[in-house]
Amino acid sequence: MTARDGTMLDRLHATLASRGEADPETSYTAKLLRAGPERAAQKLGEEALETALAAASGRRERVVGESADLLYHLLVLWIATGVTPAEVWEELARREGRSGLAEKAQRPKS
Amino acid sequence: MTARDGTMLDRLHATLASRGEADPETSYTAKLLRAGPERAAQKLGEEALETALAAASGRRERVVGESADLLYHLLVLWIATGVTPAEVWEELARREGRSGLAEKAQRPKS
Amino acid sequence: MTARDGTMLDRLHATLASRGEADPETSYTAKLLRAGPERAAQKLGEEALETALAAASGRRERVVGESADLLYHLLVLWIATGVTPAEVWEELARREGRSGLAEKAQRPKS
Amino acid sequence: MTARDGTMLDRLHATLASRGEADPETSYTAKLLRAGPERAAQKLGEEALETALAAASGRRERVVGESADLLYHLLVLWIATGVTPAEVWEELARREGRSGLAEKAQRPKS
Repeated sequence: MTARDGTMLDRLHATLASRGEADPETSYTAKLLRAGPERAAQKLGEEALETALAAASGRRERVVGESADLLYHLLVLWIATGVTPAEVWEELARREGRSGLAEKAQRPKS
Repeated sequence: MTARDGTMLDRLHATLASRGEADPETSYTAKLLRAGPERAAQKLGEEALETALAAASGRRERVVGESADLLYHLLVLWIATGVTPAEVWEELARREGRSGLAEKAQRPKS
Repeated sequence: MTARDGTMLDRLHATLASRGEADPETSYTAKLLRAGPERAAQKLGEEALETALAAASGRRERVVGESADLLYHLLVLWIATGVTPAEVWEELARREGRSGLAEKAQRPKS
Repeated sequence: MTARDGTMLDRLHATLASRGEADPETSYTAKLLRAGPERAAQKLGEEALETALAAASGRRERVVGESADLLYHLLVLWIATGVTPAEVWEELARREGRSGLAEKAQRPKS
């Protein structure tokens, strides 16, 4: 395994990035990308909120659907801000290298 | 490729799930899992907010770091609510099957 | 009453509470109240997110408008959960009684 | 003035604004104001999320406490962005002037 492969999300990211050139009238992704990072940021926050509320009220099926929405909008946000999935997988791999104890020591917040 | 492989996240999910049995004193993940779904939901929302604010203020590097935090907490939320990564990949694959037009038609909200 | 009057929220709360009986087809407030606490909670979170993004991107005028939206939805959430404005004012007054030092000591989180 | 008085927020705003000059070591408010609008925006979002989760899980008492936290951080955000309470009351009064029908017509989002 290399830090590059998060296959499903890598592939979806490539598909969405290619839609940036599509017609905003027919592609929701193209429309979001035209609106800029703040609009994508707002949608990401809204979907995270819905995922959180679904989990808090114990609706397992809704957690699946809202998580898919959340990941879709996270990928759009990455495209809007020029972040590649590989950078995020590398950051996750870097943190995973820490032991559980180190992890705790380096997570002072909350 | 099958809908199952989102390698990096699948592997991290398995690692985190195994930490549920660890000592909450030394494992942040174990502590979160003991606290229950609502605590994981709150952390997910907080990290999404930080990712959104980083994107809105144009801090690309912070988007990478906050996205890693967001994905970590999303995986913890899935474990806390009994959701498997495969279910979410399947949901994303199902939606990806739609054309851009269909996608738009089925996303009426905001 | 002038627009400066802080009793604004008490008065608006009474107005909104009376709309619970209105026709959901013509009153947005009645529609929200029929949908239940989780819908009001979601709208509150969305408006807080928009207020936060407006502040982070330095758009002062939008902070005013989004804050009005936020307070409106907070009042609706109070009605949906049976909370009265007086209870919240009392809680704020109770906290205000603390010295700055005590305030800090009692706010350990983040 | 009693704790019931809705002028609570105007008065609390004045108190908090005066703390901007206090020592960040002993005043949480002074510390937040020094950190700038983005930090206040993040705290506002976090408190709104906690209020939303408390409402969604039906914990009435927590809605009161979290709402107090939310309003406190909203006031700090106003100070950090130069917004006065009077501007927000005026915006709310302006909207209140609309009929229920007009209100609905002018709230197209979601």
